[in-house]
Amino acid sequence: MHIDIITVQPDLLASPFSHSIMKRAQDKGLLTVQVHHLRKWAINEYGQVDDYQYGGGAGMVMMCEPLANAIEELSTERKFDEIIYLTPDGKTLNQKTANMLSLKQNLLLICGHYKGIDERIREKYVTLEISIGDYVLSGGELAAAVLVDAIGRLIPGVLGDETSALTDSFQDNLLAPPVYTRPVEWNGMKVPDVLMSGDHKKIEDWRYEQALQRTKERRPDLLRDH
Amino acid sequence: MHIDIITVQPDLLASPFSHSIMKRAQDKGLLTVQVHHLRKWAINEYGQVDDYQYGGGAGMVMMCEPLANAIEELSTERKFDEIIYLTPDGKTLNQKTANMLSLKQNLLLICGHYKGIDERIREKYVTLEISIGDYVLSGGELAAAVLVDAIGRLIPGVLGDETSALTDSFQDNLLAPPVYTRPVEWNGMKVPDVLMSGDHKKIEDWRYEQALQRTKERRPDLLRDH
Repeated sequence: MHIDIITVQPDLLASPFSHSIMKRAQDKGLLTVQVHHLRKWAINEYGQVDDYQYGGGAGMVMMCEPLANAIEELSTERKFDEIIYLTPDGKTLNQKTANMLSLKQNLLLICGHYKGIDERIREKYVTLEISIGDYVLSGGELAAAVLVDAIGRLIPGVLGDETSALTDSFQDNLLAPPVYTRPVEWNGMKVPDVLMSGDHKKIEDWRYEQALQRTKERRPDLLRDH
Repeated sequence: MHIDIITVQPDLLASPFSHSIMKRAQDKGLLTVQVHHLRKWAINEYGQVDDYQYGGGAGMVMMCEPLANAIEELSTERKFDEIIYLTPDGKTLNQKTANMLSLKQNLLLICGHYKGIDERIREKYVTLEISIGDYVLSGGELAAAVLVDAIGRLIPGVLGDETSALTDSFQDNLLAPPVYTRPVEWNGMKVPDVLMSGDHKKIEDWRYEQALQRTKERRPDLLRDH
C-alpha cells in the first residue's frame, strides 16, 4: 500500500511513521508513506496557502488552488482509490472502515489546518471524509497518523503474529477481555484461576464471557449488531 | 497544566509535541508535557517491562511492577487529578470530556502497547479510561498525542484567537458549516453570495442553517441532545 499525505505541518508527522509498527511495515516494503508539504504548491513567493474566510470570523481557510495543484500533480503519479479529507464532520472512523481501507492500494490523505479547507475542494476532489472522533484537534495531522496506524497494522504481514489483530477489541463488536501476566499474585491481587488451568476450552469461554460482560457494561451500543 | 506520559515508545511522541499549537502552548508556559520511558522502571537489566499473557494467546502484556513503580514515583512529584489509561475499551473521548479535562492541573497518561496492561494496574491506579474511537491502534501513544492536542488547544491563551475554538464542530453539538476563501469563483464554483453580503445577521443565520443541515444529514445522533 502507498499513502500520500498533504499537510502544512510535515514535521509533525516525522516521528509517528519512523517508529514501531509503522516503521516495520515500511521496512518490510508493505507500506510506503510520503508526506508532502503543501507550501510546495503555494500561490506566491511568500508560501501562501490559506486566507481569511468569506463572511468573517476567526480562523484561516486553506485555499483551493494549492490543494488542487497538489492533488492534480500527485494524481498523475498514481491512481488513488480514495482521496480522504480528515475532518471532524466526516464519517466517524471505526474498525470496519479501517478493515476496508487496509485492502486499498493507493490513498491520498489531506490534513486540514486552522478552520479547514475551502468547501469547493471537498466537492471536487474528496471521495471520503473521515473523522477519528467527536472532538476537535489543531489539525488533521494527528488524525492522519491515527488513520495510517489503524489501517497499516491490518495489512497482512505487518503485525508479527497474524492472530493478534483478530482478537483485538471491535473486530467482533466486543471489547477485549482483561489480560494478565506474571506474577500470579501482585499486591494482594490474583490472576483468575481459570487462566492458569491449561484448559483451552474453559479459557476461551471465560474470555468470551468477560468480553461480553465488559461490552454490556461499557458499550451496550456495540452489541446492537451482535 | 502539566501532563506526564508513560510509554515504551517515547520517540514516537517526539514530533507531535514539538510543533504547531502544542509547541506554542509549551513556549507560553501554559502546558508542560513530560514523556517518561517505562524501561526506566524495568524489572531487570534486560529492560523487561512485559511478559506473555496468562491463558495463552498472541500479544504481550505490560507488567504490573514497572507501571506501579513509575506511577508511584511520579505521584510523589505531583498530585494527579486523573490517572488516564488510553485503551479501546475506555470511555469514548468527546468534546465534552476534552473540555472537562482542559480544566485540570495535573494529568498522568499511560500508553498501552502490545495487548495492553495487566488488569490489576487498571483496578489499583487508573481513575479514567479513555478511547479515542472504535478502532485499534498499535499502541496508546498516538491516542495520548490526540488527547493532549484536543485538551491542550482548549487551555485559555493557547489558540491565537479565543473565539476560534468556540465555533468548532461539537462545541454546540453541531458540525461546523462550510468555509470558503478567495477567489470568489474557482473552477466554475462560486462562494455563496450571502457570505459576501456584509450582513452579519444574515451570515450568522446562514451558517447556523448550514451547520444544522449538515448535522442532520451526517450525524443526526448529535442532535438528540440539542
